[in-house]
Amino acid sequence: MDRKSKKRNIPFPFISISDRAASNIPIYRQIYESVRRAILSGAMQGGSRIPSSRSLSAELGVSRMTVINAYDQLFAEGYLEGKIGSGTFVAGELPEELLTTPKVREIKTVARPRELNLSRLGEQLERDGQQLLREPLSTRFQPFQNGLTAVDSFPFDTWGRIAARLSRSGPHAVIRGNDLAGFRPLREAIAAHLRSARAVRCEPEQVIVTAGAQQGLALVSAVLLEPRDNVWIEDPGYNSARDLFSLSGAQLVPVPVDGDGIDLEAAAHSGKKPKLIYVTPSHQYPLGMTMSLGRRLSLIETARAARAWVVEDDYDSEFRYSGRPIASLQGLDIEGRVIYVGTFSKTIFPSLKLGCLVVPPDLVDVFTAARTVTGAQSPMIDQAVLAEFISEGHFARHIRRMRTLYQERQKFLVEQVHRHLAGFLEMTPGDAGMHLVGWLPEGFNDREVAMRADELDIRLSAISDHSIMSYPRMGLIFGYAAFNEKQTRRGVAKIAVLLTELSKSKCFKP
Amino acid sequence: MDRKSKKRNIPFPFISISDRAASNIPIYRQIYESVRRAILSGAMQGGSRIPSSRSLSAELGVSRMTVINAYDQLFAEGYLEGKIGSGTFVAGELPEELLTTPKVREIKTVARPRELNLSRLGEQLERDGQQLLREPLSTRFQPFQNGLTAVDSFPFDTWGRIAARLSRSGPHAVIRGNDLAGFRPLREAIAAHLRSARAVRCEPEQVIVTAGAQQGLALVSAVLLEPRDNVWIEDPGYNSARDLFSLSGAQLVPVPVDGDGIDLEAAAHSGKKPKLIYVTPSHQYPLGMTMSLGRRLSLIETARAARAWVVEDDYDSEFRYSGRPIASLQGLDIEGRVIYVGTFSKTIFPSLKLGCLVVPPDLVDVFTAARTVTGAQSPMIDQAVLAEFISEGHFARHIRRMRTLYQERQKFLVEQVHRHLAGFLEMTPGDAGMHLVGWLPEGFNDREVAMRADELDIRLSAISDHSIMSYPRMGLIFGYAAFNEKQTRRGVAKIAVLLTELSKSKCFKP
Repeated sequence: MDRKSKKRNIPFPFISISDRAASNIPIYRQIYESVRRAILSGAMQGGSRIPSSRSLSAELGVSRMTVINAYDQLFAEGYLEGKIGSGTFVAGELPEELLTTPKVREIKTVARPRELNLSRLGEQLERDGQQLLREPLSTRFQPFQNGLTAVDSFPFDTWGRIAARLSRSGPHAVIRGNDLAGFRPLREAIAAHLRSARAVRCEPEQVIVTAGAQQGLALVSAVLLEPRDNVWIEDPGYNSARDLFSLSGAQLVPVPVDGDGIDLEAAAHSGKKPKLIYVTPSHQYPLGMTMSLGRRLSLIETARAARAWVVEDDYDSEFRYSGRPIASLQGLDIEGRVIYVGTFSKTIFPSLKLGCLVVPPDLVDVFTAARTVTGAQSPMIDQAVLAEFISEGHFARHIRRMRTLYQERQKFLVEQVHRHLAGFLEMTPGDAGMHLVGWLPEGFNDREVAMRADELDIRLSAISDHSIMSYPRMGLIFGYAAFNEKQTRRGVAKIAVLLTELSKSKCFKP
Repeated sequence: MDRKSKKRNIPFPFISISDRAASNIPIYRQIYESVRRAILSGAMQGGSRIPSSRSLSAELGVSRMTVINAYDQLFAEGYLEGKIGSGTFVAGELPEELLTTPKVREIKTVARPRELNLSRLGEQLERDGQQLLREPLSTRFQPFQNGLTAVDSFPFDTWGRIAARLSRSGPHAVIRGNDLAGFRPLREAIAAHLRSARAVRCEPEQVIVTAGAQQGLALVSAVLLEPRDNVWIEDPGYNSARDLFSLSGAQLVPVPVDGDGIDLEAAAHSGKKPKLIYVTPSHQYPLGMTMSLGRRLSLIETARAARAWVVEDDYDSEFRYSGRPIASLQGLDIEGRVIYVGTFSKTIFPSLKLGCLVVPPDLVDVFTAARTVTGAQSPMIDQAVLAEFISEGHFARHIRRMRTLYQERQKFLVEQVHRHLAGFLEMTPGDAGMHLVGWLPEGFNDREVAMRADELDIRLSAISDHSIMSYPRMGLIFGYAAFNEKQTRRGVAKIAVLLTELSKSKCFKP
């Protein structure tokens, strides 16, 4: 544009060198940057001679070697031509229009929205991103954030000792087991654990290591779902699974749950033949019931008849407080229709980012290929540490300890709610898991309560946010596993104040 | 089917208990499993009475408590009815047809292929899986496997010390920085490093942490590519990127490379307007040239005009042996069209599985959403260790040391090839990187040589396998970074024997 006005006769006015103390960038690099930008912006034109390294070094008060270093680099990158020492010029053969227009501006100034030309998925993410970009779980340790574990009780010393030992022994011992489906000894440890603790029927070959349940579900979605495929999904249900399946373009079929789990008759009435059925049989999320045996068998039969896949999300089944854990749905599956999704986020800690899929034998290769091509590998070191942690018995021991702790914490939460929130919240003790639902009386809106609680640093999740169809009752999800008595007591007290206040403003009579 | 023949009068013949020493599975669990399978297979029918715990314990020679435990569990899961002690029955209310047919068979016996009902991507993976399931890089440390680092020289002691310190200090210090786009201090450390070492223009906000380059490319593909979009890709080029883009359904447009990099004129002649252009400007993979400045500027202009995205895969740019590293293409990009793909697989070690994307500011949210919803998070602990490793200066120091080592290793390889493979392989020293191409004379087939070499535990990658169009010369990719003089010498010697043998069988005269 107005190129002339940018050109100056004073040599190198555009070279700015910061105070050495004030900058980490070496002087030669600063000179290099200044010249490069001057060329790209058109301030220095192709063919024009640049000062000798001697004169520039004198002018800038830096060593000549520093200037030579800068010129050297500019030369290597094609900005300068000629022989250093005998005369150096701005390269002339560069496309002139690119050099002079547009002016260099900082990329951050690309402020006005432009058409981004994304994929359809990209556009959907762009549009719905704000909703999807929920705050990361583990940044706020506030009651009653669900999905958090009692990290204070995790044996980090043991974990760190195993990690240090494996790091010291170097990589050779570890990388030998690097299968495309995951670290081989970890797959073996997971298979052994799932067989004995969850009655999952599997060989280590069927275990695909993932970076947690969400990545497992993403692989399922990629490998199985086409746009417009019907996905039966529990309603209320797990919203992250819902979001993911929905992004694949699949048609979500919300299916109500009754006391036995997903209501297959209601689903059949929808007339929409399923391609995939997503369930949480051990402990329905978020309502908490266990799927009955009869329902499990019907579900497998339904899947068989429809040639559909069943995704069993077994997210918190290790924490069962009465009786032993209920065997997995996968263990009943004689048809090879169930894909088991496991996670260590609930049993170790969420930021470990490790989980697994157990897939039928004839899906192993396709899932392994999907994992490989999408770069869904997990760091070998963490897989190795977890494998040792499991096989040395620390894992089982930690689960046992947490089972006792979480049961106590649930009991304390229920007591506190009954004592301080009677009339406001109805909460029944649960057999399992790390959360309970507190049901609100008529007149309250769960989303509003959750929003208001958030302002008080209380994290509650609304049943409405986990529902596709409107659910007949308003309720709030209380995660209790991560919080000690003091935190729970104070959390409940804050909620009591909030609900009292809200009830007044609503003329609500408890 | 033939149910009667399965029914027996002898009580519980189907209960098999292994020798205690031979099995890890508790006895009660074995009893439980046997009964459960008998019910499901129809061997035990609904409504039939089962022996008392007392008589069964006597019969099996186990404690009564063991049997009660098993019954308890069966009862809890709905397989048994009635009151334990007063009489227990197989549950009658289960759907009879599900209980009696089909017979339980081990899932492994689902041997005959069935129609899997996958997504189109799943079908493609199923079909091309064998090709995609290349052996994992790091399981075989054999010359001249490319992509491996000199792990023996990695400061595992330092790494392990940082890891142990962070593990001991517990999770609270670490998880606070858990952004959805990656661990915040790591994003800062990466931005600082890329700014100074690669002249990447970026703020930490633009850095998205990935599990390596392949996951970065998978996110790019998900967010940007629709089926039938044109993707310009260097040919020969990086085959894993090619496979990935191809799986998205995009149309690959192979573009030849000349001495200056991707041949944009040839690409323009294809008449296929690009949606995305994939390049390796610092060090073309696999041929090794550096993209000239003029070509870089033209590339950015081409992308601007087409509203296309440029993916800069900067896979091994830290290892430059003459001059300083060439600045990144991203640093020239004043249009915000370049997506920078970085990896720590080459600078730390592959099994770390950490890398990054640097995306234009207006793509940050959509990439963060894609990362979140696909569960592409990396473990916090590794991110934290890497952040410290970079910011404490260990990373820069390691790169400097490896630069010297790899340069020596390259020099040694070239010497050995010139000495022992003259006439068979043409190999020119390179300015950069961790691999060189050895060109075969007329008459040899690179795939065949690679295959024969594999039998001798020598890993060579054929240029033909990295080409979409047939490339005029046959060549082999030699990774040299991971191999010491002894390994390189022996590798070259084996290849000399092989090529001599092959040349005889082909009546080839060197």
